Amino acid sequence: MTKPMYEGKAKQVFATENPDELLVYFKDDATAFNGEKRGTIGNKGVLNNKISTFFFNLLSEKGIPHHFIKMLSEREMLVKKLDILPVEVVVRNIAAGSLAKRIGWEEGRKLPSTVIELYYKDDNLGDPLINNYHIKALGLASPEQVETLEAYALKINEILSAFLKDKKLELIDFKLEFGVHKGEVLLGDEISPDTCRFWDSETGQKLDKDRFRRDLGNVEEAYQEVLRRITGQ
Amino acid sequence: MTKPMYEGKAKQVFATENPDELLVYFKDDATAFNGEKRGTIGNKGVLNNKISTFFFNLLSEKGIPHHFIKMLSEREMLVKKLDILPVEVVVRNIAAGSLAKRIGWEEGRKLPSTVIELYYKDDNLGDPLINNYHIKALGLASPEQVETLEAYALKINEILSAFLKDKKLELIDFKLEFGVHKGEVLLGDEISPDTCRFWDSETGQKLDKDRFRRDLGNVEEAYQEVLRRITGQ
Ligand SMILES: Nc1ncnc2c1ncn2[C@@H]1O[C@H](COP(=O)(O)OP(=O)(O)O)[C@@H](O)[C@H]1O
Ligand SMILES: Nc1ncnc2c1ncn2[C@@H]1O[C@H](COP(=O)(O)OP(=O)(O)O)[C@@H](O)[C@H]1O
Ligand SMILES: [Mg+2]
Ligand SMILES: [Mg+2]
Repeated sequence: MTKPMYEGKAKQVFATENPDELLVYFKDDATAFNGEKRGTIGNKGVLNNKISTFFFNLLSEKGIPHHFIKMLSEREMLVKKLDILPVEVVVRNIAAGSLAKRIGWEEGRKLPSTVIELYYKDDNLGDPLINNYHIKALGLASPEQVETLEAYALKINEILSAFLKDKKLELIDFKLEFGVHKGEVLLGDEISPDTCRFWDSETGQKLDKDRFRRDLGNVEEAYQEVLRRITGQ
Repeated sequence: MTKPMYEGKAKQVFATENPDELLVYFKDDATAFNGEKRGTIGNKGVLNNKISTFFFNLLSEKGIPHHFIKMLSEREMLVKKLDILPVEVVVRNIAAGSLAKRIGWEEGRKLPSTVIELYYKDDNLGDPLINNYHIKALGLASPEQVETLEAYALKINEILSAFLKDKKLELIDFKLEFGVHKGEVLLGDEISPDTCRFWDSETGQKLDKDRFRRDLGNVEEAYQEVLRRITGQ
């Protein structure tokens, strides 16, 4: 295969014959804490490709525009090429991770209202939290784009939370990336246990990348369990 | 004197015979980096009381509602009692301090547009940056109050920046606290070299608490110079 156009922490991105489309290859590599912790999760690439494919299809049905075109192989996905907006959108229903630390709440406490956080996508800076004034001053996105991101993020939260509840999974929080394709804002990247926190609704068991971050064991099994629950496979 | 109702890092707050009014006593104590660095700055209490008094009077003329009633002595100020909103409002014109770190800009670079940042006033948490969603979820202030804080903060920035420019001082950034008095949002706390960054317009010399934070020397002299320039004393 040719050299990737871009190699990220979890995926490689390749050009295709069509300049409007890219091929995304899902790796087993896992990183945490801004690259400080590194390792691999067996079969993660395959599982995240399948899980993301499932969620993008679900969002299609609900009218959320996204980059996903089709799965090409176990680890490969064909997507629309985006100019990625350097603003990561995090949606939170339950306090966990950095939010729990920031506001001094114990993990697992339900937030009285949904929290959206915007982070500047910049590995060198450690993806800092930012607000609309930072975005404007840095020219990261237009105010209209930020409005669109937040509206889609809230809609996606409703769709995913409701769907997952039926599968006995609690959607604690998740991170989205968006980009522009032919002037339109589309959801990009992936939706997987790498980018979401999923807790078993009954036992509270973590079924996501926190098992890797915190050395909880059974990481691959957790990703497998998410795929099993959402697809019934 | 009676025991203070509240003792902060830089001031003591005393009840008065009038339940709607408080006495604020300005100390020489200085802290930085969330209390990690401690010291005193000679005469700081006197200087900050005089500088704050001057700025509150300036803001009165321009129609900004605030807590200041009158100076009682060199170190004492009479103010309207506020229920302080636990949201610190930072306004920035030029990148410096934590913003320069957050976005990876060198200090002194002009921001293309004014940046407002909201911080959760909580010493134990280290006053973390927050956004409107955090404020709503934590119930720190109503959306209308946040709008008011931001509008006043921008207006105060215009007033102070224009005034200081004439005195050959650049207003780099500053922190405000607001509170509620009889249902109305008023500006509270202090406006001083402890809470603002002032740079000499020509030489770029720092005339504020960064001289203490960064051990630059001549700290008292810098505070004195700010008072001299703004009042002509
Ligand atoms: N449709 C798309 N078009 C262009 N770039 C994309 C698209 N979807 C995702 N990306 C980018 O490709 C990279 C995916 O690789 P990943 O390993 O997740 O990177 P990172 O280390 O930045 O998280 C990310 O930088 C992501 O923003
Ligand atoms: N008008 C007011 N009414 C009540 N509290 C006030 C008023 N103005 C300021 N304060 C509070 O008084 C304290 C001032 O003391 P300071 O030493 O600056 O405290 P801190 O250590 O919290 O910065 C702060 O907590 C501030 O919020
Ligand atoms: Mg990624
Ligand atoms: Mg203070």
